[in-house]
Amino acid sequence: MEIEPWMDADELVRMMETCGFGARRLAEAVNIYEEMLLGDYTKFFTLAGAMVPAGMRNIISALIRDGKMDVLVSTGANLVHDIIESFSHHILGDSEASDANLRDEGVSRIYDVYVDDDDFVRFEELLQESLPQSSEPMTGTEFLRLLGSRIDDKKSILRSASDCGVPIFCPALSDSMIGLQAWLYKQTRKLNVDAFSDVGELVDICYGSERAGIVIIGGGVPKNFALQSMLVTPKSFDLAIQLTTDRPEPGGLSGATLSEAVSWGKIAPGARKVTVYGDATINFPLMVASALTRLQKRA
Amino acid sequence: MEIEPWMDADELVRMMETCGFGARRLAEAVNIYEEMLLGDYTKFFTLAGAMVPAGMRNIISALIRDGKMDVLVSTGANLVHDIIESFSHHILGDSEASDANLRDEGVSRIYDVYVDDDDFVRFEELLQESLPQSSEPMTGTEFLRLLGSRIDDKKSILRSASDCGVPIFCPALSDSMIGLQAWLYKQTRKLNVDAFSDVGELVDICYGSERAGIVIIGGGVPKNFALQSMLVTPKSFDLAIQLTTDRPEPGGLSGATLSEAVSWGKIAPGARKVTVYGDATINFPLMVASALTRLQKRA
Amino acid sequence: MEIEPWMDADELVRMMETCGFGARRLAEAVNIYEEMLLGDYTKFFTLAGAMVPAGMRNIISALIRDGKMDVLVSTGANLVHDIIESFSHHILGDSEASDANLRDEGVSRIYDVYVDDDDFVRFEELLQESLPQSSEPMTGTEFLRLLGSRIDDKKSILRSASDCGVPIFCPALSDSMIGLQAWLYKQTRKLNVDAFSDVGELVDICYGSERAGIVIIGGGVPKNFALQSMLVTPKSFDLAIQLTTDRPEPGGLSGATLSEAVSWGKIAPGARKVTVYGDATINFPLMVASALTRLQKRA
Amino acid sequence: MEIEPWMDADELVRMMETCGFGARRLAEAVNIYEEMLLGDYTKFFTLAGAMVPAGMRNIISALIRDGKMDVLVSTGANLVHDIIESFSHHILGDSEASDANLRDEGVSRIYDVYVDDDDFVRFEELLQESLPQSSEPMTGTEFLRLLGSRIDDKKSILRSASDCGVPIFCPALSDSMIGLQAWLYKQTRKLNVDAFSDVGELVDICYGSERAGIVIIGGGVPKNFALQSMLVTPKSFDLAIQLTTDRPEPGGLSGATLSEAVSWGKIAPGARKVTVYGDATINFPLMVASALTRLQKRA
Repeated sequence: MEIEPWMDADELVRMMETCGFGARRLAEAVNIYEEMLLGDYTKFFTLAGAMVPAGMRNIISALIRDGKMDVLVSTGANLVHDIIESFSHHILGDSEASDANLRDEGVSRIYDVYVDDDDFVRFEELLQESLPQSSEPMTGTEFLRLLGSRIDDKKSILRSASDCGVPIFCPALSDSMIGLQAWLYKQTRKLNVDAFSDVGELVDICYGSERAGIVIIGGGVPKNFALQSMLVTPKSFDLAIQLTTDRPEPGGLSGATLSEAVSWGKIAPGARKVTVYGDATINFPLMVASALTRLQKRA
Repeated sequence: MEIEPWMDADELVRMMETCGFGARRLAEAVNIYEEMLLGDYTKFFTLAGAMVPAGMRNIISALIRDGKMDVLVSTGANLVHDIIESFSHHILGDSEASDANLRDEGVSRIYDVYVDDDDFVRFEELLQESLPQSSEPMTGTEFLRLLGSRIDDKKSILRSASDCGVPIFCPALSDSMIGLQAWLYKQTRKLNVDAFSDVGELVDICYGSERAGIVIIGGGVPKNFALQSMLVTPKSFDLAIQLTTDRPEPGGLSGATLSEAVSWGKIAPGARKVTVYGDATINFPLMVASALTRLQKRA
Repeated sequence: MEIEPWMDADELVRMMETCGFGARRLAEAVNIYEEMLLGDYTKFFTLAGAMVPAGMRNIISALIRDGKMDVLVSTGANLVHDIIESFSHHILGDSEASDANLRDEGVSRIYDVYVDDDDFVRFEELLQESLPQSSEPMTGTEFLRLLGSRIDDKKSILRSASDCGVPIFCPALSDSMIGLQAWLYKQTRKLNVDAFSDVGELVDICYGSERAGIVIIGGGVPKNFALQSMLVTPKSFDLAIQLTTDRPEPGGLSGATLSEAVSWGKIAPGARKVTVYGDATINFPLMVASALTRLQKRA
Repeated sequence: MEIEPWMDADELVRMMETCGFGARRLAEAVNIYEEMLLGDYTKFFTLAGAMVPAGMRNIISALIRDGKMDVLVSTGANLVHDIIESFSHHILGDSEASDANLRDEGVSRIYDVYVDDDDFVRFEELLQESLPQSSEPMTGTEFLRLLGSRIDDKKSILRSASDCGVPIFCPALSDSMIGLQAWLYKQTRKLNVDAFSDVGELVDICYGSERAGIVIIGGGVPKNFALQSMLVTPKSFDLAIQLTTDRPEPGGLSGATLSEAVSWGKIAPGARKVTVYGDATINFPLMVASALTRLQKRA
């Protein structure tokens, strides 16, 4: 591996292909991602960890708008912070600040990123205005599609997905400030989102996928929900990329190897798959920058 | 620190109190847990990671039956495997086995623990018989209480909670085989579980808690759901213990420090709190064994 | 797994044998350690990480005095802090303290353990009095044996090893305050320690071992030095236990699996071996307490 | 953060400056590295982990030849593999291969990189020819300078350092195959390398540094040896970058925060410093590529 000034992200990653350890894993991730974007794959994307507060929002919404994502499975928190970014901004803070002082100042901390309490007030107002009202049962994806259509920011993930017809699944929606607001909203208005209806919708997408590829950022519920939906179909994922800081040994699903998912039938025995261990705020932009550059080079 | 043969778990942990690093954190966890069990605290417990497949099930159900847990927030997977344990057993396997071979043999792997596919068949039959039928809206906790009452095993977490009136919250219930089965069940029968109703129920418990303590195993949705419920109340947790393998630097909630939760108002600025970094399959039994021994020594 | 009050450490670990993940690894570590202590093995022990500041000193010196360790390979820092403990004590501190303030107060921090600068002054005086003087070439183990004989504390690791004829290898001795003091000492007095002579001495021990077992705490130079010495012999380790927080994926030796050492010929293909991932300040005392209890139960 | 095709490494990193978590840490690392390269700093570099087998060798030798490194502190293993690369190549392998099979085939594994046993035979021949012979006491840096001058490969780290007068410190030289070979060599020839003489040489460099900056890859002995040398001077490091996968909580030096080094006086209270947690095989090339591009942009 040799470094030259002015190297583009793709040149850097191509060099990593000849290396060991994480560098090689990252290079393989870009190879798989390139295949996923060029081939005829239904493209799943799962999002956990505070990736939106960390600044990854515009990368994700651009992937949606560019047709590079067919299904998004997310934590609730990433959607909450996506909405907050539509009218305000997260603040670069200090991971070592006194949390008691921050509380006094009305600032909530996410590692080294701050959110002002006023943003949560405005978030509440926005949601109480924007949440859909209906006595008819609604699926979670329909609920999020309607909510997204009311976000006044083209760079919003929710809005982009709504505009582009990309379904967003959020199996733990109640576990977020959207959930808290929806519960408050329901005290006085009608809202009927079924806890299980999304399951079938995602299973149907899995059934309908000729071939399927998945990018997993950070594990958690989104990872499991996407993988388990393949379980009840005769299919499985053909391409899989996982960017995570978790490790397999403690046995949790977030750190489980993609190979383990082969034993369950979620991922095909012959699938191309790779896990890149490390901080996704570095590895994800680098992977996307490299893959997009390759697509341009081919074009 | 000096080791003597025949030391009980509490003697071992008391020695750790004079040490640094993880040992001291574990000793502090036991001190806090002792205070939680002896004092007038509403005792929250959150469970993520594959703790039931790993064998922690009976410890948890015993804590429920002994009145040492007032609220349980769990991932769906732990409840699924709790049900499987009620009629079969997880198998000690090999974390390095060929996953393609396991697939051929009909075995699903969770790190070094196996589940036989036949158990999932039986799980399906059991759930299709046992799931509650109702056209009336039901909360998630009510759904799980009814399901638990139909589990024929006193050592089951679901059954124990049902017997003892301990509510189980599972915000991502659809993200589990219970969710898959509930969706299948709904194709032909009536089932109406609302996605948001649990939110209010947990908020009410938070409001009603004079003082509140929490044990967090493994982060994830359960951690966040329990902590966020305090957000909309004027209260906060007074005691908090976190056993996790995650670290703060990648910014995700699972690894976030308990101090960070102070900035949000979820945990009180003056709360006693500690995180023990490490494998909860070791640290959790050691903590419980030490705390129970202390209670006996006091008795 | 079920927890009873008054369980001794061994009962707790035996329960873990039926569990998954880290618990099972720890139980296997105790099984291997029991075999190592009962069988006719040359018992190697490698020590990295700040285990002495963390309070593990007396466990180690007791293992030496009880004949449960035949060779110790250590970092320099653990020996430095062993000497400090012979005349003073490490202080339980705060891992979040202001390091600039600590500097002003003359306190050096090792995570949540403090050392007073006065102790380093006294350490300097002690070493300048105690270091052996000789113009003849000396091996590192001989240097440490002489130094150990001058430590006035029976619980000292150095003293215990000196008393019991257990050689201590410290391949990076210059990388420690003993190294700094030895260099100062040499400005005015004669000291001639050869950089390579220890290599042969450890190789000889490896050659002479009928069967060999090793306990590796924390990786680093001590792990590698012990393992590489087998390389030039036809032998290899038959039993191996590794307690570490490092993971294999970044490729460094500290986190390398014991299996990797099989490819090098350092560990036998059929060796019993296990790595327990986690904080050794918890897992090491638990392992020792359980193993010593088993020996008593057999006796 | 927004990704464009053709972004160069520096554009990517500049975007990361507006992000949270690891991305921001990496961006800060590049800022500090830029200052180090442009300003009047003595530039220390410490190297641990299997960075040469992983393919980072040419980056490091180029930094030496370009005058961007004044002092290198390394593990022995990285120097061994530097020599092997001078006549052969590491092979990209499989981290999941059977280690028993690899042993049979004469292949040693370093995670997903292989070394052929024949290379070690050739390494032995080379060293037995190239090691310096002398009955006069020699320092470790002198020994490595002479060895480097005999390596017939301009891209070698040892050779580049020898050519450019950059001293290489290797405090645990005996803990490597160079150490094994030196010991063999000494059986029949004269070689006299003092264990402590390097200490003074590095202390002198610290004393002589107007201002000092350090890049720490992977912790271990090299990190400690460089930092401790400042201890006995009135100076301290003014700039510090650490790329590591280790974490602070287990208390070991490799994962210790740079702030902790402030309490010891090794790093200045007002120093610019940052730790990037993650795989250095990714983060190090990205940091170097970004910094070199910046220097070009300024030029």
